[in-house]
Amino acid sequence: MDRTNKSYPLAEKMLREYQAVIEPALVKYLDAAGREDAVAGAMGYSLTAGGKRIRPALTLAFCRACGGDWEKALPLACALEMIHTYSLIHDDLPCMDNDDMRRGKPSCHKAFGEDTALLAGDGLLTAAFQTILSADLPAETIRQAGLALARAAGPAGMIGGQVMDLANEGRAVDAARLRETDMLKTGALIRAAAAMGCIAAGAPEELRKAADRYAADIGLAFQIVDDILDMVGDPAALGKAVGSDAANDKSTYVTLLGLEGAKAEAERLRASAVDALSAFGSEADALRELAGLLAGRTC
Amino acid sequence: MDRTNKSYPLAEKMLREYQAVIEPALVKYLDAAGREDAVAGAMGYSLTAGGKRIRPALTLAFCRACGGDWEKALPLACALEMIHTYSLIHDDLPCMDNDDMRRGKPSCHKAFGEDTALLAGDGLLTAAFQTILSADLPAETIRQAGLALARAAGPAGMIGGQVMDLANEGRAVDAARLRETDMLKTGALIRAAAAMGCIAAGAPEELRKAADRYAADIGLAFQIVDDILDMVGDPAALGKAVGSDAANDKSTYVTLLGLEGAKAEAERLRASAVDALSAFGSEADALRELAGLLAGRTC
Repeated sequence: MDRTNKSYPLAEKMLREYQAVIEPALVKYLDAAGREDAVAGAMGYSLTAGGKRIRPALTLAFCRACGGDWEKALPLACALEMIHTYSLIHDDLPCMDNDDMRRGKPSCHKAFGEDTALLAGDGLLTAAFQTILSADLPAETIRQAGLALARAAGPAGMIGGQVMDLANEGRAVDAARLRETDMLKTGALIRAAAAMGCIAAGAPEELRKAADRYAADIGLAFQIVDDILDMVGDPAALGKAVGSDAANDKSTYVTLLGLEGAKAEAERLRASAVDALSAFGSEADALRELAGLLAGRTC
Repeated sequence: MDRTNKSYPLAEKMLREYQAVIEPALVKYLDAAGREDAVAGAMGYSLTAGGKRIRPALTLAFCRACGGDWEKALPLACALEMIHTYSLIHDDLPCMDNDDMRRGKPSCHKAFGEDTALLAGDGLLTAAFQTILSADLPAETIRQAGLALARAAGPAGMIGGQVMDLANEGRAVDAARLRETDMLKTGALIRAAAAMGCIAAGAPEELRKAADRYAADIGLAFQIVDDILDMVGDPAALGKAVGSDAANDKSTYVTLLGLEGAKAEAERLRASAVDALSAFGSEADALRELAGLLAGRTC
């Protein structure tokens, strides 16, 4: 695959196809977990606010690439997106990043108030596990998938990364620390996405390891591109303000490696991610392209 | 059992014995879920701040009363207490009840800051499911127990009750609405405590139903006594301020039924809870006493 080409037809088709099943499934699982009230409205507002649905698509794609029935993995994929969405709602709260906009719309607490947004985040986090535990899958598969998600989302995963991120504010951070922060804050959930697809398919250890390396690489590449876009991105295309890292005096891959250095690192990770998929055949071609799409994305 | 007697030796002994195993187990499961950082410190601060551990004790007691190995239910019991503790941390936040004190100590956000308290709540909620999913129990038992907890804690349970509670503020609420609010806000988790004990023991449907009715009754009695104590309780003994319901102009069982009416309702529920346990033999005597202890508690 030629990165300079910047055409990813297989990856874009895959994302479109999975989005078409993920969007209605998210609404279905949300309805199953809730009741009609203000918090359910806020949960739905944020959960259906768009986004590329990369994480749940990874779950479905790895399930299929491992020879599994990807439709069976749909509740796992949706649970992951619920976790991702809850983390955005809580991250946007005034006591955290205090972001007023998210995906081109008022953030959850701006639209519904802080109390309702707090509960909506809690509700999505809980509904995620309810969705996994209700899945039409063998109990042992559910146990493994739920555990992978809990570990990735919890204090030793995403939340641990958020703590490191808070601690990093206002002080110089080196590349190793930044990498560790991002591997937890962003990487853990992306790795769980791949892992849950493999678990749903009952994949052998060799494929699980390959999927994990791929996910770790694209997770980091994704974060590097986030830093690049916060420096040079177009707010209209991104649907959110840029320049917040500079405003908060945050160390990023761009401040540490320079703009060109950060781009080169994203490309190195893309190549490494593609390399990790050598254990898979042509059924993983869309995933190979996806690494390029993410490393080269502009919004 | 004579309520006027106010002596509950079996229930008090049971709570003491279970507390002695629950306290170290909470620390063990918290350590297993986390890493050493600021949020882990905040999680531990709130999780080990005391309390009677009534919910996890109910899980262990019903597991034993149904003929199960109560030690196997310990991770389920601790997961429940993690959920309860997270809900207190988030409830105390300035955007919710804005309480500075909890169990005689500064509330979590007062001690660690709002951002860390928010993440500590999220961390405990996630760690609860991690703890259940890591339990040394059959996968199907884990699935059932996790699902019972997720339903009870989620938008159709505790969170739904919190939403109703927010909506009830500053307006007149009748007894039916108050009861529905409390059945979700407090009752759902107490019912899940009993249900998880029955699930761990593989109890038959008849015993599960009896346990559920008992738990629903004592859950409501517990809330009524909470309202009574907020009106007439001793702040020093309670470890928190009183009078917040009156200050917030909230409808409570005391405002709706009067002080004596509320006490009579708590006693009616105690008797109903004891009646529900007729399917159990003498092994449930401590649970029978517990209903009286909760309905008659003064702190």
